Amino acid sequence: MQSVELDISVTADDAILWRDDVLYLLDQRRLPQEERFIRCQDAADTAEAIRAMVVRGAPAIGITAAYGVALAVRQRYAEAPEHWRGRVAQDMQLLARARPTAVNLFWALERCRRELETVAGGDPFPPMLVLAQRLHEQDRAMNRRMGEFGASLIEGPTAVITHCNAGGLATGGHGTALGVIRSAFAQGRITEVFADETRPWLQGARLTAWELVRDGIPVQLMADGAACARMGAGGIGWIIVGSDRIAANGDVANKIGTFSLAVAARHHGVKFMVAAPTSTIDPDTASGADIPIEHRAAEEILNCAGCPVAAAGAGAWNPVFDVTPAQLVDAIVTEKGVILAPDAAKIAHHLSG
Amino acid sequence: MQSVELDISVTADDAILWRDDVLYLLDQRRLPQEERFIRCQDAADTAEAIRAMVVRGAPAIGITAAYGVALAVRQRYAEAPEHWRGRVAQDMQLLARARPTAVNLFWALERCRRELETVAGGDPFPPMLVLAQRLHEQDRAMNRRMGEFGASLIEGPTAVITHCNAGGLATGGHGTALGVIRSAFAQGRITEVFADETRPWLQGARLTAWELVRDGIPVQLMADGAACARMGAGGIGWIIVGSDRIAANGDVANKIGTFSLAVAARHHGVKFMVAAPTSTIDPDTASGADIPIEHRAAEEILNCAGCPVAAAGAGAWNPVFDVTPAQLVDAIVTEKGVILAPDAAKIAHHLSG
Repeated sequence: MQSVELDISVTADDAILWRDDVLYLLDQRRLPQEERFIRCQDAADTAEAIRAMVVRGAPAIGITAAYGVALAVRQRYAEAPEHWRGRVAQDMQLLARARPTAVNLFWALERCRRELETVAGGDPFPPMLVLAQRLHEQDRAMNRRMGEFGASLIEGPTAVITHCNAGGLATGGHGTALGVIRSAFAQGRITEVFADETRPWLQGARLTAWELVRDGIPVQLMADGAACARMGAGGIGWIIVGSDRIAANGDVANKIGTFSLAVAARHHGVKFMVAAPTSTIDPDTASGADIPIEHRAAEEILNCAGCPVAAAGAGAWNPVFDVTPAQLVDAIVTEKGVILAPDAAKIAHHLSG
Repeated sequence: MQSVELDISVTADDAILWRDDVLYLLDQRRLPQEERFIRCQDAADTAEAIRAMVVRGAPAIGITAAYGVALAVRQRYAEAPEHWRGRVAQDMQLLARARPTAVNLFWALERCRRELETVAGGDPFPPMLVLAQRLHEQDRAMNRRMGEFGASLIEGPTAVITHCNAGGLATGGHGTALGVIRSAFAQGRITEVFADETRPWLQGARLTAWELVRDGIPVQLMADGAACARMGAGGIGWIIVGSDRIAANGDVANKIGTFSLAVAARHHGVKFMVAAPTSTIDPDTASGADIPIEHRAAEEILNCAGCPVAAAGAGAWNPVFDVTPAQLVDAIVTEKGVILAPDAAKIAHHLSG
């Protein structure tokens, strides 16, 4: 992969850049120490960048894949104007295999496939690029609407707590939880953000702090265990997090540690908000108990920054996500609006409305 | 400081060893990777080892200082059998300055000072060594009693969660919270321990896991944020922690993250136990609000394993301790017995009884 620096002042909205007819992906593995981009000229480059987690976050991966299809179409049409379709189909399989569990990736590729079916003749690249840019812009616009809906709930001015990274880096821009925070900060409703460092991967320290510093929003990192004491110290109006999947009854799967925040928030009378697009809500998952929870390697806990810290012989319990029961959620915010005190009926109505 | 290996199978009960007429301190800074000892031949060696945190934990520091006085007395009496008292007084000042906020250090030195006053003539070393060994054995015996009292509360068999390191390493042996866990495991009441890694210093990963592995007690480490989800997954009967200070009303100061555990425990119907000697209870501190909370350098959060992880410009909120309100504590266990649902009246009665 070709790593380059770009002559721009980088923000979280630059995670996916189409520039000079190539795709630049901000290399999130190097943040915050270095702000470098991976240059993608074809589908192979793009698939490798997705696989290597240069880009992460379900919406960001989907948008990246769409640009990858545009790159594939341009290359294969130039190579063989009469026989590009078979080669592009192979490229799309390559992209689909890059992160096999990413639902947004398949969704984006399916959108591309349908678009390609409508291309009758001539150069298929311009309409594919338009589609990728439209998906990108739609995601950003959705996050801005979500941000406005979420911000309207925050009376403020208040400090808030967030967990992991549900930011511009994980989306087409603006972010989900961080989108609400950006919108509310711009309106003077949020004064300061306390960010959990989010062990074991430290996304809060590495990514969320970087995004907020770049945007000039005051941010203080803390150990995950400190959040409860921070709420007790006062001045925290809301906990604002994203979600990886929301069940039909409003139970919320999100990064490990979210459940702990929700329980502490209820104890302290702090409000708990989940910001996520409606595509995160899975009507086929009845409750949180039906959400499969990925457990990752013990080494993530037994090591720290690549060095072993724990005694040989110790095990580890390392789930990636936990499930916060709907009863502890004060509001789910989507691009369509707000669901207060979510339950199955309200969520079904929200999805159908 | 002279670092040596000893030809023994090291456990947490070997943190402070008197052997061949010198003091060996297990170098806790190197655990769990290396099991090396610092050899102390005089008070200067001992003071430096305390200062450099070779040994940590209030009871362990107090006992170490008493051995340091014994070493001082032997050296100064050999140097000048008629004029050792002045030089020993200087050595004791050196020891007192090693960790200026450690209450147990001053308490142990005061015990030594009174013992020295009773020495009329002849070699003062034997009675001082006897005192140091008696303080050491008293602490161990106290922790064993505490362990029995704590274990009796646990119906079991059950898994438990602990936080930070309240183990043999921090005491004269057996430990406080880990003492309860050791006693209850020996009785078949505890099956397994889930240990919070305890950011930012990772005492759970570095020290608690090492102690339990050495004792053959099954231990699984987890990110601090995972404890709430672990309780939700079932099978956890008790949270068992130590304490740095207990207020007269039963509010408990302990390592940051303890409050979060207590709130989650109450949410899940899991019991919450604090194991600490009566010397931890401060009758002059009315409530947790009166306990000063030390905040440490932002770098502890902004860095990980010595490398910067957060964007320049991010701040950090880094209190060392938090205060768990007495209302969330099901039992305080001391060497004198058990205080269920602690409050000011029960604690006063416990201390006077």
